[in-house]
Amino acid sequence: MAQNIYDNDTFFEGYSRLPRSVEGLDGAPEWPTLRAMLPALDGRRVLDLGCGFGWFCRWARQNGAASVLGVDVSERMLARAKAESDDVAITYARADLEDFQAGSAAFDLAYSSLALHYIANLERLIARVHAALVPGGSLIFSVEHPLFTAPNHPGWSIDAAGHATWPVDSYLDEGPRSTDWLAKGVIKQHRTIATYVNLLRRSGFTLSHIEEWGPTAEQLTLHPEWANERERPSFLLVACSRAAQR
Amino acid sequence: MAQNIYDNDTFFEGYSRLPRSVEGLDGAPEWPTLRAMLPALDGRRVLDLGCGFGWFCRWARQNGAASVLGVDVSERMLARAKAESDDVAITYARADLEDFQAGSAAFDLAYSSLALHYIANLERLIARVHAALVPGGSLIFSVEHPLFTAPNHPGWSIDAAGHATWPVDSYLDEGPRSTDWLAKGVIKQHRTIATYVNLLRRSGFTLSHIEEWGPTAEQLTLHPEWANERERPSFLLVACSRAAQR
Repeated sequence: MAQNIYDNDTFFEGYSRLPRSVEGLDGAPEWPTLRAMLPALDGRRVLDLGCGFGWFCRWARQNGAASVLGVDVSERMLARAKAESDDVAITYARADLEDFQAGSAAFDLAYSSLALHYIANLERLIARVHAALVPGGSLIFSVEHPLFTAPNHPGWSIDAAGHATWPVDSYLDEGPRSTDWLAKGVIKQHRTIATYVNLLRRSGFTLSHIEEWGPTAEQLTLHPEWANERERPSFLLVACSRAAQR
Repeated sequence: MAQNIYDNDTFFEGYSRLPRSVEGLDGAPEWPTLRAMLPALDGRRVLDLGCGFGWFCRWARQNGAASVLGVDVSERMLARAKAESDDVAITYARADLEDFQAGSAAFDLAYSSLALHYIANLERLIARVHAALVPGGSLIFSVEHPLFTAPNHPGWSIDAAGHATWPVDSYLDEGPRSTDWLAKGVIKQHRTIATYVNLLRRSGFTLSHIEEWGPTAEQLTLHPEWANERERPSFLLVACSRAAQR
């Protein structure tokens, strides 16, 4: 089973205070970019892998989705998600994504925001997501960018003139990384961009678009404190689709 | 016109002494990985963009290619390439890849080694390469990795314990970078991985495989001096294909 850090008291309290937890999707700086990569949702059956507080599940319903299944390992997050909505077309299920199985060809869209970098056996999960999608269905997800997860001691290096660089090491050495983020010893899996791309291809997905996210000029006028995030991207956003039936 | 640094005296002399110039393909550490991404060459018509001394052109013929067109901007490199072989199925042409045009559906494989990061208008070149390939034809290329080209002041940072990191900045700010490599003021174009992937998609290519190259464990036993190259990849290798005709 994957580490369930979201049910850790310290982590949960810290996470609950992040802008993306308080303001929802609009509190996530990468959301406009990720949203632009989504297909039309009208009448679609949506799967949200690592749904957290359910912000995307509710948004998908508000934007025409026929039904949404939100899956998360965190009891606390699901409890809050359930309390936020009585929409009967949204179902929440507790499951460890390491072992997650869905029905066959049961969804038109699989979505995941910043969850897949916690998964050790990503190949198995992606194979199951492929099976759970209809032919022509889409998988759209974000993960922490490999440049963000690679270093053994991640952090900005600021020179005498105040210029920031992000020292990279161990980029090609994939595997778990332990960092102290909101709580001590949070385990994430570092993978290269090539590994994400080739794993999706091997699993039968066709890549349609990727983004290496950093703030836009417009976002920087509102949030000048994000300027360093242009030096190295924070998030990798991927859109791909299950090939239509032959 | 792109900078023709290969005809600069200092650069040409330095480049001519590199292992990849003296030993050919086997002197290039990324070659085994790139070779494994190539399709079978038997009877195929091959285009080599930035053919240099013609090592790949000759190798392609030795491995069954029906014909090879090698294109390069450097007069000196082409002169040596021509002197190396009297194979009438290899044609060498001098052209600036910024303005390169080939016939329609004239090639089965387009290949390029470490040339495309010199091209300012890559979108136009890729569109022309797409047109020059038959439906189902392949484009296989290497470029300097975006982590290598991003920094304003590229170089390893070595800490007191001898551990190397590669300080990254400006990753999301694409465009020319001037570096001193073999000669002063060599201009290369920095692009993100997302830009390469999305440009290929937009141009009608389907991505099949990418590699972020660093030395293997086996290579490191022969070349322990390459150890730092595991910390951040040196080369991005891409395989994609023109969709078969609908």
